[in-house]
Amino acid sequence: MKKIPYILISTGDPAGVGPEITIKTIRSFVTSRVKLIPAGDFNLLNEANALCGSSHAFPLVKLNSLDDIKDISSNNEILHIPLPSEIQKRQVSAKAGEYTYNLLKTCSSLCLKGFASAMVTGPINKEALKMAGYEGGHTEILKDFAGITSIDTIFCIENLKIFFLSRHLPLKDAISLIKKENILKALINIDNQMKNLGYKKPLIGLPGLNPHSGDGGLFGREEIEEMIPAVKEAKQKGINVEGPVGADSIYHLGIKGRFDAILSLYHDQGHIASKTYDFYKTVTMTAGLPYIRTSVDHGTGFDIAWKGKANQESLIKALELAVELVRKKEKPVYTKYHSEG
Amino acid sequence: MKKIPYILISTGDPAGVGPEITIKTIRSFVTSRVKLIPAGDFNLLNEANALCGSSHAFPLVKLNSLDDIKDISSNNEILHIPLPSEIQKRQVSAKAGEYTYNLLKTCSSLCLKGFASAMVTGPINKEALKMAGYEGGHTEILKDFAGITSIDTIFCIENLKIFFLSRHLPLKDAISLIKKENILKALINIDNQMKNLGYKKPLIGLPGLNPHSGDGGLFGREEIEEMIPAVKEAKQKGINVEGPVGADSIYHLGIKGRFDAILSLYHDQGHIASKTYDFYKTVTMTAGLPYIRTSVDHGTGFDIAWKGKANQESLIKALELAVELVRKKEKPVYTKYHSEG
Repeated sequence: MKKIPYILISTGDPAGVGPEITIKTIRSFVTSRVKLIPAGDFNLLNEANALCGSSHAFPLVKLNSLDDIKDISSNNEILHIPLPSEIQKRQVSAKAGEYTYNLLKTCSSLCLKGFASAMVTGPINKEALKMAGYEGGHTEILKDFAGITSIDTIFCIENLKIFFLSRHLPLKDAISLIKKENILKALINIDNQMKNLGYKKPLIGLPGLNPHSGDGGLFGREEIEEMIPAVKEAKQKGINVEGPVGADSIYHLGIKGRFDAILSLYHDQGHIASKTYDFYKTVTMTAGLPYIRTSVDHGTGFDIAWKGKANQESLIKALELAVELVRKKEKPVYTKYHSEG
Repeated sequence: MKKIPYILISTGDPAGVGPEITIKTIRSFVTSRVKLIPAGDFNLLNEANALCGSSHAFPLVKLNSLDDIKDISSNNEILHIPLPSEIQKRQVSAKAGEYTYNLLKTCSSLCLKGFASAMVTGPINKEALKMAGYEGGHTEILKDFAGITSIDTIFCIENLKIFFLSRHLPLKDAISLIKKENILKALINIDNQMKNLGYKKPLIGLPGLNPHSGDGGLFGREEIEEMIPAVKEAKQKGINVEGPVGADSIYHLGIKGRFDAILSLYHDQGHIASKTYDFYKTVTMTAGLPYIRTSVDHGTGFDIAWKGKANQESLIKALELAVELVRKKEKPVYTKYHSEG
């Protein structure tokens, strides 16, 4: 068998839209040189399959472990993580929370051991996780499994990666963090993360904070006092960075390919740019984990789940990004699960 | 002759790209129910015409005044504002500055008297104006001619109008202006300006300042303490306003047609949104003048002027917006220059 990277799809909370959008996605997703493996309860995914058209046209195949893989060019082999007992669909429950957690644990473990290259996560429900005794969401749980303390949430839009200096802070507190040492630290981190993602010499753009980057100090001095010195020092360290560039043009330039990454100075700066450019094309990914992870950007949709109505667009975008990132790394995974073919 | 509104194009600094982009525009611009009238030196515009293809295919016609108009369906009648003497092309000069000023004076006067409905302004050069003894740019000069003290610069993107609570201020000073009374005043102003533009009951969107509009006070309190009370009071005054809505979705929603206008809380909020959405589709217009005015968003391009190289895209967008706004007003201009036909 040829050696190609595996991408796991954790199908998320079984009571929500995760199973259905996974099936809709794998029924139509065309790729090569990577193999998609949805992970979830085989019977439940068969139910979802029946919701999405004829099951005969797209029969699912059960894998009890990745050792069982027969056809690396197919999307229909399901890694079976059995539900211990039936769950109530469209309901928040401790049982679904417990299952979701275990599903993530299995997928995370396969990625951490190098048996899979990437994980694309379907929607989970924090309330259900909490009822099962687990705090937080994907970020906290995956960080915990990996035994690391800090990871970055990155927005991906076209080929641009947007990192954030801060996220959930009042704007005025976010501004007070715009200090030379913080920016320098962030630039070094971005350079590392981008290299981990397979960029050899990533070009990083630093936006201005004030109108027209302060226009030489006329409309604010953070650029002169904090940002320009940080850029200078980063360059001395061999980091490929440009800026400050006016925030109303740098994101346009970045999306058009001028930069590989941009450091958003506050939550809304990068959010407004990517979501206004294309609300549905913005994909969230996580950097800092020892594997690639991208995610849908919506919830479990209990109101519409298991009715055949859910839209798979966000999962497709997340999967496309995972495929791109896996290829970018250009490091096929060689594991005991792959034998020469 | 049928009564239709006139839109003047002030061709800007004669040494720059203005004449050329005007000719390129009128050669291809197709419209109905409005008449475009470029204003500039007839001989100079004939020179520009020769730069842009065969003059025989598109002969210009000289108007010494709007009384001379013969064909309301044509774009090739030029309101002749003579240059007193030859100017140096591609050069900053007091002579060109003086001419630019007089051109604006004539166009402004025709609009103020109601003989024209709109003015689309080509690029001017502030340095040339300064050499001729005039301070400022279009905004200051047109305000002065109209005898008013305050006008608003508005960004137009698709059908959305973006107003600004403040513009050229350091971001932290802009935040300190986010007070109930300032927001209320701005909402009342937007409601008035939009009504002047022909919107009967404009729907105004108010973005949040903090991430997720502060998430109930978790990430900042301006929404709770200043913005929500301002929205409440504005609604009591009969203003159709919604918000605060997260800044990373409201501009997307506005561009898709959910809002007629949005109040950008600081310079970059609205700038990032519109320019990242489409850098070249953002058109600047002025509200508060007793006529419609839109503008190109670039300079005189002395480096490329009079070589047939200048791109007319921005003037076309500005003209399209002026046409749309003139039609929206649905108030055809009845003047002594129009006789029943």
